Amino acid sequence: MRIPFAKLQSEFKRILLNLNFTEDKAERCATVFAENSRDGVYTHGLNRFPVFVDFVKQGLVKPDAEPTQAGGFGALEQWNGNLGPGILNASFCMNRAIELAKANGIGCVALKNTNHWMRAGTYGWQAADAGLIGICFTNTIANLPPWGGVDPRLGNNPLVIAVPRADGNVVLDMAISQYSVGKLQQYKMNGEQLPLPGGYDKDGKLSNDPTAVLEAKRALPIGFWKGSGLSLVLDLLASVLSQGNSTAKITQNETESGASQVFICIKPQGNNYTANVIEEIISYTKSSRAEKEGGSISYPGENTLKTREKSLEEGVLVDERIWEKVLAL
Amino acid sequence: MRIPFAKLQSEFKRILLNLNFTEDKAERCATVFAENSRDGVYTHGLNRFPVFVDFVKQGLVKPDAEPTQAGGFGALEQWNGNLGPGILNASFCMNRAIELAKANGIGCVALKNTNHWMRAGTYGWQAADAGLIGICFTNTIANLPPWGGVDPRLGNNPLVIAVPRADGNVVLDMAISQYSVGKLQQYKMNGEQLPLPGGYDKDGKLSNDPTAVLEAKRALPIGFWKGSGLSLVLDLLASVLSQGNSTAKITQNETESGASQVFICIKPQGNNYTANVIEEIISYTKSSRAEKEGGSISYPGENTLKTREKSLEEGVLVDERIWEKVLAL
Repeated sequence: MRIPFAKLQSEFKRILLNLNFTEDKAERCATVFAENSRDGVYTHGLNRFPVFVDFVKQGLVKPDAEPTQAGGFGALEQWNGNLGPGILNASFCMNRAIELAKANGIGCVALKNTNHWMRAGTYGWQAADAGLIGICFTNTIANLPPWGGVDPRLGNNPLVIAVPRADGNVVLDMAISQYSVGKLQQYKMNGEQLPLPGGYDKDGKLSNDPTAVLEAKRALPIGFWKGSGLSLVLDLLASVLSQGNSTAKITQNETESGASQVFICIKPQGNNYTANVIEEIISYTKSSRAEKEGGSISYPGENTLKTREKSLEEGVLVDERIWEKVLAL
Repeated sequence: MRIPFAKLQSEFKRILLNLNFTEDKAERCATVFAENSRDGVYTHGLNRFPVFVDFVKQGLVKPDAEPTQAGGFGALEQWNGNLGPGILNASFCMNRAIELAKANGIGCVALKNTNHWMRAGTYGWQAADAGLIGICFTNTIANLPPWGGVDPRLGNNPLVIAVPRADGNVVLDMAISQYSVGKLQQYKMNGEQLPLPGGYDKDGKLSNDPTAVLEAKRALPIGFWKGSGLSLVLDLLASVLSQGNSTAKITQNETESGASQVFICIKPQGNNYTANVIEEIISYTKSSRAEKEGGSISYPGENTLKTREKSLEEGVLVDERIWEKVLAL
């Protein structure tokens, strides 16, 4: 089922206004939720919206809260999200990082006490749309066992690296688990198996069954020991730089709240060399012969743009059950 | 066979002095090569030294060259490595990034026209030993097919993230391939199979045979499509920020020379919160029950320190064949 983008946006906004979001905040949050579905990240668009509403009702997300500065030195700043909406805090901090990078070549903002920022890529697109390289990551509740262990002690700590480009930004948006929790839930909901092993089942065997992996709480980090190490250092960076909660601390509560995030922006030289080397890298990558006949090679973000275009032309794909649920909110 | 650290270092230095390295440059290069083997990264210590010597003899690595500044704005600088020894260029640039971070909270140095920096982790340890968070990466010759393709078009672009810590720095040092080329060669040389699939063979089947993977030139990126995307964006960042050669350009020559690298440093707050949250994260990670009886969970860099200690006490482990080769140089 497809819904016009504007309809999705206005429904989200209606509900947020009822939850005492100001006009401006409701508009901005609703837009990002709608954009996430528009770009094909359904798990953090419409599908996540009812959970977000629930978090607001529980008082875990505070619509009134504004980020306040907690520290700063040169091109590095610390901010406190005061448990406000994750989307607004993250968007604010990426904007600060953009300003710092414009003034200093590079800028870094670390944010503590924030909430789930939904789709990580949102803030990469934000930086790249402003003409800057954007790098950001967040810690999460523990949902991934460290390499050699069975109990989840690491977050899947999504990492984004975005590069501005005239013909479409390059935006890598990846969780450190082979499949994000949202993706596992999506496969489970659709009754589908994973195309590649996504973790271990309760018996410690590699499994393509999303239900078995979710139940065992043993999702697989990318690259086995490498992703495990990467997740740990991203949590260290986020917690140390923001002076905020670690995955360990966030996991003490059952619900994910009070996360730590980092936003880095770098100003690239906007010259011909930059434009040419980007195209050189993309076209060289695409020159690899395809593994399967008729197959093609994409750069990160390329399919996002295709999905976006289709969504804007034909409407945004929605899960009917969830859409009905949202209409009734 | 084990050799005292000082002996390894002095042999390397003797050879470099014969190649017209100055006393100071020979000392610094020899030390890093010896340290790489001391820390257990044999592939980029002793084992790589004869290749380095060969590159110097071929004129690909220029002992006389010094890095020169190519640009700069605020806390972001560009440098030209002028094809000097990769170790010296990288060490110089990480030092500049440290100085920039001390002055601005965060600093970034992008380096073009450099040579192989040997062990990536060296520069992470350098930043962390100076009390700073260090992030660095390099592009390489194409040695990894992009996701969906069969011909190598991406580098394995090693990435380092280092966090300073009183009881031993946390240093993640990982190539984007599941196994680095050096590691695959090491397994091959020892006649061993890989513990996990490291790529595809010529028939397109996942394989644990290092020889088959090397021959097919189809090493596996970590996390399949995710590592493929990560490698591409790291190449973009390195080439755009340094205005240097991309993996595409480097691969035009048969030998790997003229690479691009990025060095980022961030100054963490040196307070109790920082020290405590680091220990909290490490001890929480280690609290996961081990998968195998008697197994243990390590943080990145932990085993490096153990190997270092043993090397300094009992001598550095060397491959006798390569050691004899080096003695004869």
